[in-house]
Amino acid sequence: MKEQIRQMSIQLFAEKGFKETSIQDIVNALNVTKGTFYYYFTSKEQLLMDIHLSYIDSLLQKQKTILEDPQKSYREKLHEVVYLLIHDIEKEGLSAKVYFREMRNLSEPHLSLIASKRDLFRRQIEEILRSGMEKQEFRDDLPVDIVALGVLGMANWSYFWFDPSGRETDSSISDIFIKILLEGLKGST
Amino acid sequence: MKEQIRQMSIQLFAEKGFKETSIQDIVNALNVTKGTFYYYFTSKEQLLMDIHLSYIDSLLQKQKTILEDPQKSYREKLHEVVYLLIHDIEKEGLSAKVYFREMRNLSEPHLSLIASKRDLFRRQIEEILRSGMEKQEFRDDLPVDIVALGVLGMANWSYFWFDPSGRETDSSISDIFIKILLEGLKGST
Repeated sequence: MKEQIRQMSIQLFAEKGFKETSIQDIVNALNVTKGTFYYYFTSKEQLLMDIHLSYIDSLLQKQKTILEDPQKSYREKLHEVVYLLIHDIEKEGLSAKVYFREMRNLSEPHLSLIASKRDLFRRQIEEILRSGMEKQEFRDDLPVDIVALGVLGMANWSYFWFDPSGRETDSSISDIFIKILLEGLKGST
Repeated sequence: MKEQIRQMSIQLFAEKGFKETSIQDIVNALNVTKGTFYYYFTSKEQLLMDIHLSYIDSLLQKQKTILEDPQKSYREKLHEVVYLLIHDIEKEGLSAKVYFREMRNLSEPHLSLIASKRDLFRRQIEEILRSGMEKQEFRDDLPVDIVALGVLGMANWSYFWFDPSGRETDSSISDIFIKILLEGLKGST
């Protein structure tokens, strides 16, 4: 039941917005009582926090697997992180929507915890870049923090435009982005 | 007075959100009557549309100047469009916030008009890429639409992190981004 409440809430928050959805709306949609809701969650905000935590924890877990793979070059790791972000936005469309749009409805200390986990994800991209620079896989004349934000921007912005039913897949888009990021757009003149 | 209403509303919408700000809040903050508001705007949504239109029209106007400059290479034009976006997010911080966050509160036909102007901005980046590919300034083996979205993502994402009081300026960030975009991150191995 907890998972059903989470899934229904993600759907309602994505459709109508967090503020515009009441606990009554959630229990009505599931045909259960408010008592059932409060058995699993102390408040609507705690439920929102739960959704945010699962989203970022799952991304961090997948990123960790990529980081720790000793077989992969840092270029490959960067490619996989870009793919991870675009793939997740596709696969977890509604959760991504709630994650990107409703963070401002979290209050402290929830907000700080999510912010620090987002920071960790970003700093681990910096770590890939830094290690790759040391191995000369990446050029080392650009500041890693701004490069990491550029990579994140390119991938995360797909949230606003990626259409899974369109011509390009999550995989082909990350291939194109990694080509731009690694090789650049310069032509022969 | 019209401009004062616009500026105060941008501030209130950015702070509290569009839905959470009433016309009463706006006129109270300016110490004028509701009659004054309705002399200039027919509704709160029309005011929001007015803010959206000024924002995108000003960007399109500046983009047009860049596009039409016969002295500049397409690489330089791409650089200037990236700078334009980051600079505007810095300079028009509160307007950018309202523009990025409150678009969903526009109704038709307003929404379609703003969407088509956003599309035009994006298609004009594609145009720079396409013309630059023909002149071999850019590689021509990547789809222009996805490349344009990557460029836009990198620049627009700065809305979420750019701090004008930080180490890097709008100008140094766009220099770094254009180096990544044109030359790529690959190192020597």
